[in-house]
Amino acid sequence: MHKRIRLGMVGGGQGAFIGAVHRIAARLDDRYELVAGALSSNPERAATSAEEIGINIDRSYADFRKMAAAESKRVDGIEAVAIVTPNHLHAEVSIAFAEVGIDVICDKPMTFSLEEALEVANVVKKSGVTFTLTHNYTGYPMIREARSIVHNGTLGKIRVIKSRYLQDWLTTDLENQGLKQAEWRTDPSRSGAAGSVGDIGSHAFHLARYITGLELESLAADLTTFVPGRKLDDDASILLRYADGARGSLWCSQVAVGHENDLQIAIYGEKASLQWVQENPNELTFCVHGEPPVKLTRGGSQQSLWAEQATRIPAGHPEGYLEAFAQIYTDAADLILHRRENYPSNNPAPIPNLEDGIAGMKFIRAAVRSSQNGGNWEMLD
Amino acid sequence: MHKRIRLGMVGGGQGAFIGAVHRIAARLDDRYELVAGALSSNPERAATSAEEIGINIDRSYADFRKMAAAESKRVDGIEAVAIVTPNHLHAEVSIAFAEVGIDVICDKPMTFSLEEALEVANVVKKSGVTFTLTHNYTGYPMIREARSIVHNGTLGKIRVIKSRYLQDWLTTDLENQGLKQAEWRTDPSRSGAAGSVGDIGSHAFHLARYITGLELESLAADLTTFVPGRKLDDDASILLRYADGARGSLWCSQVAVGHENDLQIAIYGEKASLQWVQENPNELTFCVHGEPPVKLTRGGSQQSLWAEQATRIPAGHPEGYLEAFAQIYTDAADLILHRRENYPSNNPAPIPNLEDGIAGMKFIRAAVRSSQNGGNWEMLD
Amino acid sequence: MHKRIRLGMVGGGQGAFIGAVHRIAARLDDRYELVAGALSSNPERAATSAEEIGINIDRSYADFRKMAAAESKRVDGIEAVAIVTPNHLHAEVSIAFAEVGIDVICDKPMTFSLEEALEVANVVKKSGVTFTLTHNYTGYPMIREARSIVHNGTLGKIRVIKSRYLQDWLTTDLENQGLKQAEWRTDPSRSGAAGSVGDIGSHAFHLARYITGLELESLAADLTTFVPGRKLDDDASILLRYADGARGSLWCSQVAVGHENDLQIAIYGEKASLQWVQENPNELTFCVHGEPPVKLTRGGSQQSLWAEQATRIPAGHPEGYLEAFAQIYTDAADLILHRRENYPSNNPAPIPNLEDGIAGMKFIRAAVRSSQNGGNWEMLD
Amino acid sequence: MHKRIRLGMVGGGQGAFIGAVHRIAARLDDRYELVAGALSSNPERAATSAEEIGINIDRSYADFRKMAAAESKRVDGIEAVAIVTPNHLHAEVSIAFAEVGIDVICDKPMTFSLEEALEVANVVKKSGVTFTLTHNYTGYPMIREARSIVHNGTLGKIRVIKSRYLQDWLTTDLENQGLKQAEWRTDPSRSGAAGSVGDIGSHAFHLARYITGLELESLAADLTTFVPGRKLDDDASILLRYADGARGSLWCSQVAVGHENDLQIAIYGEKASLQWVQENPNELTFCVHGEPPVKLTRGGSQQSLWAEQATRIPAGHPEGYLEAFAQIYTDAADLILHRRENYPSNNPAPIPNLEDGIAGMKFIRAAVRSSQNGGNWEMLD
Repeated sequence: MHKRIRLGMVGGGQGAFIGAVHRIAARLDDRYELVAGALSSNPERAATSAEEIGINIDRSYADFRKMAAAESKRVDGIEAVAIVTPNHLHAEVSIAFAEVGIDVICDKPMTFSLEEALEVANVVKKSGVTFTLTHNYTGYPMIREARSIVHNGTLGKIRVIKSRYLQDWLTTDLENQGLKQAEWRTDPSRSGAAGSVGDIGSHAFHLARYITGLELESLAADLTTFVPGRKLDDDASILLRYADGARGSLWCSQVAVGHENDLQIAIYGEKASLQWVQENPNELTFCVHGEPPVKLTRGGSQQSLWAEQATRIPAGHPEGYLEAFAQIYTDAADLILHRRENYPSNNPAPIPNLEDGIAGMKFIRAAVRSSQNGGNWEMLD
Repeated sequence: MHKRIRLGMVGGGQGAFIGAVHRIAARLDDRYELVAGALSSNPERAATSAEEIGINIDRSYADFRKMAAAESKRVDGIEAVAIVTPNHLHAEVSIAFAEVGIDVICDKPMTFSLEEALEVANVVKKSGVTFTLTHNYTGYPMIREARSIVHNGTLGKIRVIKSRYLQDWLTTDLENQGLKQAEWRTDPSRSGAAGSVGDIGSHAFHLARYITGLELESLAADLTTFVPGRKLDDDASILLRYADGARGSLWCSQVAVGHENDLQIAIYGEKASLQWVQENPNELTFCVHGEPPVKLTRGGSQQSLWAEQATRIPAGHPEGYLEAFAQIYTDAADLILHRRENYPSNNPAPIPNLEDGIAGMKFIRAAVRSSQNGGNWEMLD
Repeated sequence: MHKRIRLGMVGGGQGAFIGAVHRIAARLDDRYELVAGALSSNPERAATSAEEIGINIDRSYADFRKMAAAESKRVDGIEAVAIVTPNHLHAEVSIAFAEVGIDVICDKPMTFSLEEALEVANVVKKSGVTFTLTHNYTGYPMIREARSIVHNGTLGKIRVIKSRYLQDWLTTDLENQGLKQAEWRTDPSRSGAAGSVGDIGSHAFHLARYITGLELESLAADLTTFVPGRKLDDDASILLRYADGARGSLWCSQVAVGHENDLQIAIYGEKASLQWVQENPNELTFCVHGEPPVKLTRGGSQQSLWAEQATRIPAGHPEGYLEAFAQIYTDAADLILHRRENYPSNNPAPIPNLEDGIAGMKFIRAAVRSSQNGGNWEMLD
Repeated sequence: MHKRIRLGMVGGGQGAFIGAVHRIAARLDDRYELVAGALSSNPERAATSAEEIGINIDRSYADFRKMAAAESKRVDGIEAVAIVTPNHLHAEVSIAFAEVGIDVICDKPMTFSLEEALEVANVVKKSGVTFTLTHNYTGYPMIREARSIVHNGTLGKIRVIKSRYLQDWLTTDLENQGLKQAEWRTDPSRSGAAGSVGDIGSHAFHLARYITGLELESLAADLTTFVPGRKLDDDASILLRYADGARGSLWCSQVAVGHENDLQIAIYGEKASLQWVQENPNELTFCVHGEPPVKLTRGGSQQSLWAEQATRIPAGHPEGYLEAFAQIYTDAADLILHRRENYPSNNPAPIPNLEDGIAGMKFIRAAVRSSQNGGNWEMLD
């Protein structure tokens, strides 16, 4: 029989962008039922937001700690919580719910600082709950395909990893013009020590890690703040040295005029290469050395099991950002039901977890330190 | 307060492709709740299918007439029905539900024949229910944008309309190899008089109609069956003459090797042109004569109200086929609530209705007649 | 030792576009030396034009007949002539030079009318000279590659052939604004019975013929003149039926806003398909049914001999229109030297000749007749 | 009257790739006549090569110094020399011809080392001859367009400059398999201290300099040799800091599987951005912040004078690598005739010269030093 996981949400009240995305993602494959929320710390706004999206008023909370306490006592209490607040709250919310045995699904980056991330990991491990980090791009089928191709050894030893994530929405100082999204993302007290590097660079970093499994050893980062008065970096170019001799670089920018959400990754091995572009995510360019490049497509004739499991509709009918995001939720549902009710696992591709979150926080810290050091090389640990 | 429309479904049992798509589409924007179904005419399969997707067993029916009767009597009975059967059943199911006052959402083409379509229209009009035809591609924001640009007169008088819909999944005789999808789509007793023209050509035809509002006056069609033994056309090239002197052509094929769901439309006016490609649907190429071509994007800086209303997430995060399909459901929800509960309409772009369905059936009939006539010109009426 | 063919030119004086192109094409591979010309029928303009491009004044003629007579008597007289006049002069110039034993290289379409083409063919055959028609797009390496792939049977039986050639430079009535190029191309007394069909449709028609070798049997053509007052078609959509059951269509337009020289061809067989786009001519998309599409490139790893012979520089360094045009000249040089001096032929891909020219004129005639007949089907012979 | 410059060539005998390219480039616009050569230091190979390309045997030399001496004494001696040898010979050949008053056109990089470059500059300046460095990509019309747009201030202050040049032909150790091109390019005694950085990175570096005019101040370079046994870098990622606060990075690789000659550059300013890709060189993507991206085309409606002067044929008919290379020769011809015969200059866009060559050598030296230093930052001077 069809089983929906009871889900709560912290953050994501009216006007928030990412909360609505998480709700669609949770709903899309019909694996969750959103029944409780602390959508805002302002009680009135919390209630109005809850009503608007169909959460019963008696399960709308203004305080996430009260929500954790109350829900953990109900027979029909939430089984999992989605955390969609600004970064500086991720740690305390994660801890509050993990401690009462509620599974955690948390937006990225994992926390405000590496120290917090390690603390969260500690609590989560003790509690035994699952922890899913919504590095949503790893839900794209062609990213799963890429991971599968690399893991099969088709590329041979990996030589070069290049990624970039470009936006242009912060080309001017929107944070001074009343845009909430811009305000907290450029505010060190809410975002952390990095701007573009934490917000989008962390996605590019994670994608490389997800596909190749290689550990980053050191980096040299050139973080820049182009918009006068801004407090965090809005552009960064970073050289990367991976374990096993692979080299790479990463470029993230929020002032790259003409780019919307231009996340790309390319991976070059001794024998073959892969290229993927988020704005056209249903394709993966694959090339064996000495042969012409091939366009692999989602749902196409030569798909891996991992990609297939993340595919809903036939080839040529584009799936997009929301489906990829939903995939993370759907895979998390499998993990949660496996833990809670011993459902058999159907071996989906792995999804971002505690280790990935900690690795991301180390990447951010090293990038900031390198930059403070004039751009010199910095070890990751 | 958040109101979900109670929805039933006819067709779409285990193994059916389009039923699952309709369910995601209905769920995505949280405007419907699927509570009843006649998912299969086989009672056991109907029940298993219902259980699998979370429909309560006492609202699973094997006979759609019984479902119409029972649901229309319940206080909490369905308010709308989604019809996702093969084409030859569309008419009787539509009529059964319309007659008891349940709003209809029906897959395309509207019916098996033009005669049936006219009959459905008759019943629906008498009953007063809404009738939505899921020509889903009209739910794409950039198609709404195209419609808006044409309606603003930016193109000037329209000269040329070109569309195509290419697939390759019927390149070989899959209908003889046990594939259900291929069986009914190539079977004149279930699909109607046309194969590729009815299945996908009708989408391309409708897209032109939706964007331009021009009426087709005559056509010359060259329908071909390339796969030996197949009973319906699998490829067709059609010349088109529209009202007001516009000319065009349409090509649909299910044997075009290398194309997955390659639906494209291009519209040329005296002053400007538009081009759109379904496999990369978040872009619209726009060109004013004498100026360089411009890439308009979903969520981009210069979007019309109609496109905006069909947009969920920021530019550069691709929305896809499921979101476009969901948009039709969401717009239908507005129409249904307007009718049933006098909700204010928020003026969304129009969605395909009875008139569009009848026009589509006339197009199919004319194409088949022209072809039977050696490809000569045929008037639409 | 390096041998350059002595070349003369008729037409191509100051201000002419295509004359300069032919001169670069003849020069690029260093196979010709331009030594004489009747560049204009105006003696002064002929002389000035000759001086400007380095032709000795005593070999500048104002009358092409005098040029044929004089050059054929010189020991160092021209061996070949390039004809770059408007269409209505092609026949008489060709005949004048063929009759005195000078090899002919003639711009397309072959002549003003089918009758003229047959007459030219007659004279040329009697004289024994070579006749090359500069359907220049057949000089592109990836078109040679396409021809090779089709001839190897890799596509299987051909089912569908689609081509188009779109421009927008005649979107408004430039012929009334003093543009010479527009004047003669829209003037039935100089261009012939067709406008866009003769000027660019003929290229698209020839490309299909060149690659597949299939004979066109009948067509239904919808020729339109969109610009008020224009005397010839500026847009045409044409359905095509080839020998052996292949179907196709061709669209040419000179009012397709946003298109510069958008010549494309796609060929679909039972087993595989090919797609090529002139504006990015170094690529050829190739797809075997059931496998992902492959991007073949000029100079790439899997090139045929025919393509290789038309390639000058490594893959990834684009060759363009002038190189393709030069290839026709270079291949013609091989034919001319083979005839004149018994040079061994190195088996290059065939180039457009008398038969192709006649086929093109039949295509134009049938298209005009069909259109005059309301767009009904017309046999080619 | 048409005047052709008498040209000699050093290097470029049988089997050499770049010599043939220079010859086509010199011939294409009919501004040069190749009349002498020291095509090889092997007398027999020199003579055979000369004969093959139509150079008279008595002007074929095996020793470039003898050629300089002999030609400078002839009344009809060469006016300019094209140097197409491996890098280690550029300096001495340049000096030999400059000293006898013959204008120099030299392949890149300018010399083997920075010291040599400074010496060449010294001699050239004393002699008064012109010196043109064939950074051929600057001959592309859309690069000229980019330079024009930047110089007009349309981008505002420049923030970020990104370039890359990727090939894959050295993915395996071809230098050990008898390929001459691979041998000298991976040999420090003939190429200089850098491999991929000198061979192709220098092009990417120059393109940024040419378009923006910004001086590079410092860099951090990560040079890698991936192919075992190879003596020079085959991949490099380099962070760049320009004058005025602009930042950038450059990636060059000869082991990037799937890339042929993938040279790209993108420039981001406060107000707008530009993107260009060599493999599709007739387009330039231009985007003003807050507006949709625009596709500018060679020959299109909104071209600058600099681009126009480098354009031969109409928009949509692709010009390619050979035309861009020819443009450098044609512009050099203007400079040479201006110097020699006081021809009026028609103000073409500037072409790469001594200063550019020296800047390139400084870039290479700094990159190598940074890499030897573990990838730390290095000033350019």
